[in-house]
Amino acid sequence: MEVSGGPGRGIHPAKGIAVEIRLDELARLLGGTLKGDPTLICRGANPPGQAAADEVTMILEPQRREEMEGTEALAVIVTGEIESLDRAQILVEDPHQALATAVKHFRPPIELTLPPTGIAPGADVAASARIHPSATIGKGVKIGHRSLIMPGVVIMPGCVIGDDCVLHAGVTLYEYTQLADRVVVHAGTVIGANGFGYRQEQGRHVPKAQLGYVRIESDVEIGACVTIDRGSYGPTQIGEGTKIDNQVMIAHNCQIGRHNLICSQVGIAGSCRTGDYVVLAGQVGLKDHITLGDHAIVGAQAGVMDDCDGDQVYLGSPAMPQRDQMQIFALQRKLPEMRRELKTLRKQLAVLEQRLNSDPAETVDGANGQPDADTDTSKQRAA
Amino acid sequence: MEVSGGPGRGIHPAKGIAVEIRLDELARLLGGTLKGDPTLICRGANPPGQAAADEVTMILEPQRREEMEGTEALAVIVTGEIESLDRAQILVEDPHQALATAVKHFRPPIELTLPPTGIAPGADVAASARIHPSATIGKGVKIGHRSLIMPGVVIMPGCVIGDDCVLHAGVTLYEYTQLADRVVVHAGTVIGANGFGYRQEQGRHVPKAQLGYVRIESDVEIGACVTIDRGSYGPTQIGEGTKIDNQVMIAHNCQIGRHNLICSQVGIAGSCRTGDYVVLAGQVGLKDHITLGDHAIVGAQAGVMDDCDGDQVYLGSPAMPQRDQMQIFALQRKLPEMRRELKTLRKQLAVLEQRLNSDPAETVDGANGQPDADTDTSKQRAA
Amino acid sequence: MEVSGGPGRGIHPAKGIAVEIRLDELARLLGGTLKGDPTLICRGANPPGQAAADEVTMILEPQRREEMEGTEALAVIVTGEIESLDRAQILVEDPHQALATAVKHFRPPIELTLPPTGIAPGADVAASARIHPSATIGKGVKIGHRSLIMPGVVIMPGCVIGDDCVLHAGVTLYEYTQLADRVVVHAGTVIGANGFGYRQEQGRHVPKAQLGYVRIESDVEIGACVTIDRGSYGPTQIGEGTKIDNQVMIAHNCQIGRHNLICSQVGIAGSCRTGDYVVLAGQVGLKDHITLGDHAIVGAQAGVMDDCDGDQVYLGSPAMPQRDQMQIFALQRKLPEMRRELKTLRKQLAVLEQRLNSDPAETVDGANGQPDADTDTSKQRAA
Repeated sequence: MEVSGGPGRGIHPAKGIAVEIRLDELARLLGGTLKGDPTLICRGANPPGQAAADEVTMILEPQRREEMEGTEALAVIVTGEIESLDRAQILVEDPHQALATAVKHFRPPIELTLPPTGIAPGADVAASARIHPSATIGKGVKIGHRSLIMPGVVIMPGCVIGDDCVLHAGVTLYEYTQLADRVVVHAGTVIGANGFGYRQEQGRHVPKAQLGYVRIESDVEIGACVTIDRGSYGPTQIGEGTKIDNQVMIAHNCQIGRHNLICSQVGIAGSCRTGDYVVLAGQVGLKDHITLGDHAIVGAQAGVMDDCDGDQVYLGSPAMPQRDQMQIFALQRKLPEMRRELKTLRKQLAVLEQRLNSDPAETVDGANGQPDADTDTSKQRAA
Repeated sequence: MEVSGGPGRGIHPAKGIAVEIRLDELARLLGGTLKGDPTLICRGANPPGQAAADEVTMILEPQRREEMEGTEALAVIVTGEIESLDRAQILVEDPHQALATAVKHFRPPIELTLPPTGIAPGADVAASARIHPSATIGKGVKIGHRSLIMPGVVIMPGCVIGDDCVLHAGVTLYEYTQLADRVVVHAGTVIGANGFGYRQEQGRHVPKAQLGYVRIESDVEIGACVTIDRGSYGPTQIGEGTKIDNQVMIAHNCQIGRHNLICSQVGIAGSCRTGDYVVLAGQVGLKDHITLGDHAIVGAQAGVMDDCDGDQVYLGSPAMPQRDQMQIFALQRKLPEMRRELKTLRKQLAVLEQRLNSDPAETVDGANGQPDADTDTSKQRAA
Repeated sequence: MEVSGGPGRGIHPAKGIAVEIRLDELARLLGGTLKGDPTLICRGANPPGQAAADEVTMILEPQRREEMEGTEALAVIVTGEIESLDRAQILVEDPHQALATAVKHFRPPIELTLPPTGIAPGADVAASARIHPSATIGKGVKIGHRSLIMPGVVIMPGCVIGDDCVLHAGVTLYEYTQLADRVVVHAGTVIGANGFGYRQEQGRHVPKAQLGYVRIESDVEIGACVTIDRGSYGPTQIGEGTKIDNQVMIAHNCQIGRHNLICSQVGIAGSCRTGDYVVLAGQVGLKDHITLGDHAIVGAQAGVMDDCDGDQVYLGSPAMPQRDQMQIFALQRKLPEMRRELKTLRKQLAVLEQRLNSDPAETVDGANGQPDADTDTSKQRAA
C-alpha cells in the first residue's frame, strides 16, 4: 500500500488528499515576503532536517545556517535573507510562529472530539483488513491490506496504517499517526500523545505547540505499554526494522534509526537521534538532544548525558565508554583498600618526617655510635 | 463545577450527597469515648495533615502529637486524652482501626461489581459533557460541563470529574477518584488502583487497608500509561497545575505539590511530599516518605533517599546536592589516576625509607666524600 | 476449579481437552529415533527444568547433561544417546527445532485472528463468573467460579482463568495464558505478549520462536500497566502468593518464586529465577539469566548483574552486598577528601625528598650550627 500522506505531508482528514500551495500564497499566509520563484508548489512543512524536496522548513539561529546547506527543502522561512542559500526564502519576523502556521495549513489540527462508534464514514479501510467491532476508527483514517485491528483499539482521525500491520488489543493511535507496512504494535501501547513540553507564564506551565505526529517505518515491532509522543512540528520517527520492547518511552521529535533494538523500560528524552543498529539495554535513559552513532551499544541502566560515537559500548550513569567505566567500577570496589593505603601512607610519612626531623641530632648521635633512635622509629613504623 | 465531595468527603455513590454525623454518634460508631462537644457535626475522616475543619483525624504515636498542634481537624481520635490539645477527642483502643471505621462511614467501600454498559442510571453527567458510547460510567459518578470521555474509558462508581476535563482512550479511574477542572489524562493511564501495601501473616502477604482515593487538582495534565495509586485512608493528591509525563508511577498517600514537572518514568514511592514548582527529571526514583522542598530539582535517574531542601539541584543515586555529586562524578573519572598516584607514592615512600635507613651510614660516608649511594637512590626513584 | 491444562499442557483451544501422544508417534512426528518404551504416553513438552513427569524435554549442550540428572521428564530429546540417562530418549539432529515441533503439537499456535464480540461460542465460563459485555473472551477460554471480568478486558483463545479471579478494566491476556485461583490483575496490564527475542538475518532482526505462555499461580496480585511476556517454549511463571506492583516488566522465561514482593517499575530480563520471599524494591533491574536466592532483598534502583545468594541485601548498580555497597557509597562521598589527602601526601613527600637530598650537606651544615635550611623546608611544608 502506498502511504500517500508521507512524512510531513498534510492530509485533510475529511478528504484524505494531500494539500498543495504556491509559494507566493504560502508567503501571504505566513505574513512574510517571498524571495524566490512564486510559482513553486509546496506540499508540506517540517522542521530542519526533516523537510522533503517539496516542503518548506525554517531556520532560526544564524549559527544553524550551516545545517541548511544540505537541506532538500523547497523553501526556507528566515528572519533575514541569506545570500548564500540557494533556496526560495520567506522572510518573517517570528519563524517559529510561521512554521507553526504552515504546519497547521498542511496538517490542520483536528479538534478533539468524540469519534463515532466503530468505523467512521470517511475512513478508507482495505477490504482485506479485519477490524474488531469494538475498535474505533476515526474520520479520514486509511488502513491497508490484510491489517488486523484487535478489540478496543482506538485510531484517531487522520491516521494512516499500511499493509499487514497488527494492532493488538487496546492500542491507541492519536491523530495523524503513520504506520508503514508490517508494523506490529502490542497491547496497551499509546502512540502520538502530546509531547511533554511547557513554557512558564505567570507561574503556570502552558503547553507548547504539539502540532507534529509519529511516523513508524516498515517492519517495526513495538512491545506492550510503550509510549511514543508526537513531534512538536514534524514527526517523531522510528526507523525501518527497529524492535522496541515493552514499557519503552520515546519522547517528542526523536529520530530513531533503522534496525535498532530498544529493550524494556528504556526512556529516550526529546529530540534524540540514534543511528542504525543501535542497541539500548534495559532501563537505559537518554538525555534530550543526544545523538548515538551507528552500532552504538548502551548497557543496562546507563544514563547517556553526551553524544556517543558509534561502534562502541557505553556503560554507567553518567555513561562512558565500557573500558573506562569497567575500570571505574573495579576501582570503586577498591575504594576501601585505597583509603586504607592512604592512611598507611600518611602514617609512614609521618614516621619518616619525624625521623628526619630528629635526624640531624641522630646523625650526630649516630656518629657517636648510638643506634637507639633508629630502633624507636622502627617501632613507630610498625604501629 | 463545584465538586461537592471535596477531598476526604464522603459521597454516597448511590445518592451523590455528602454524609454528616454528630460527634457523639461518631464516638458511638467507633466504640470510643468522646471528650468535647457532642453536637458538633463531622463531615469526613482523613489522616493527620489531610483533615479539613469539619473532619475527624487520628493521632497514633505520642511523638507525633506536635503535628496535631496545627491541625484544622474538628476532632482527633486518640488512645488517651491529650490535655494540651484544643480539639474534641475520641478515646479508643486502636486509632488505626477507628479511623478505618470512620473512613468507611464517610466513603463506604464499594463492593467490586460489574458496572452496567454505558452510563449507569445513577450517574450525574452534565448535558454539555460528551461521553463515547464505548465508555463505562459507574453508579454515582458526576461529570462536569464540557468534559470529554473518549472510547474505552472506564470510570468506576463514586468518581467526580470537574468541568472541561479530557479523558483520552482507555483511561481507567477506580472508585471515588476525583478530578477537578481542566484535567487532561492521556490514553492508557490508570488512577486509583490499590496501593502496594501488605503485611505478612503466617508467611503470606495480606493486603493492608486501601480505603483512600486519588484527588487531582485543576489544570493538571497526566501523560499516557501513568499509574497513580489511591491513598490508604485519605487521598493521594496531585496539586494544581502540575504536569506529569508518560509512564510515571505515583504510589499511595503521596502529596504532590502545585506546578510540579514530573518527567517520564519517574517512580515516587508511598507517602512522599513535594513542594511547589518541583522538577523531577526522567527515571528519577523517590524512596517512600521523602519530602522535597519548593523548587527542588532532581536530575535524571537520581535516587532520592533523604529529604531534600528546596531551591537546590540534586543528582545521583543516592542523590546529593549537584555541586557535591558533580565533584564525585569528576573524581570517579580520576580514580584510575588516583590509584596510579597511590602506587607512585608508595614506591617513592619506600625509596625514601630505604634511603633514610641507610642514611646514617651514607651521611657518614658522604662526610667521607663518597657520593655513590646518592646516585643509586636516584635510580630507584626513577624506577 | 481444577485447571486441567496445567503448566506446559496442551489444550486444544477449540476442544478444551488435553492432547496425548505415544512416544513412538512423537518420535516419528519429530523425525527422530526413539530409545525407550514406545508405549509411554506423553502429555506435554517443556524446556529443561520445567518439564513434568509425563512430558518431553530437550537437552542441547553436553555440559548441561548434569541438569538432566534430576529431571522429572518422561523423555528427553537429544542429539546422541546418553548412556547414563535413565530416561526415554529421542535422537534428532536439531533438538531446538524438535522441541518447537513438540510444543506446537501440544499447544498448537493459534493463528492470530479477530475474536468474535463478547464471549466466543467455544468458551467455558462458570455460571457464577461475571463478564462485562464489553469484554472479549476468545475461543476455548475457561473461566472459573465467581471470577470477575471488568470492562474492556480481552482474553485471547486458549486462556484458562481459575476461581475468584478479578481482571480489572482493560487487561489483555494473550493466548494460552493461565491464571490459577484468586489472581487479581489491575487495569491496563498485558500478560503473554511476545518475548523480545530476535536473531539477525541479513541485517534484519527476525523474531525467534515465542511458542510459550504465561502461568500465574494462586493468590498473585498484579498491579496496573504491568507487562509479563510469554516464554519461548514453556511458561514464564509467577509463583504463588507473589505481589507485583504497577509498571513492572517481567520478560520471557522468567521463573518468579513464591511470596515475592516486586515493587514498581522493576525490570526483570529474560530467563531470570527468583527464590521464595524475594523482595525487589522500586526500579530495580535484573540482567537476563540471573538467579536470586530465597529471601534475597534488592534495594531501589539496583542493577543485578550476577547471581545473588539468599538472605542478603543487595544495593547499587552494579549491585553488591549491602555492607560493601554502603562502604563504597560512603567512600565516594570521601573522594574529594581522599584527593586532597593524596595531594598533601605528594607535597609532603616532595618536601621530605628535597630535605633528604639536601640532608648530607644539611647535616654537615647542621653540625656547623646553621639551622636556616630547616626553617626553609618548614615553609615549604606549610605551602
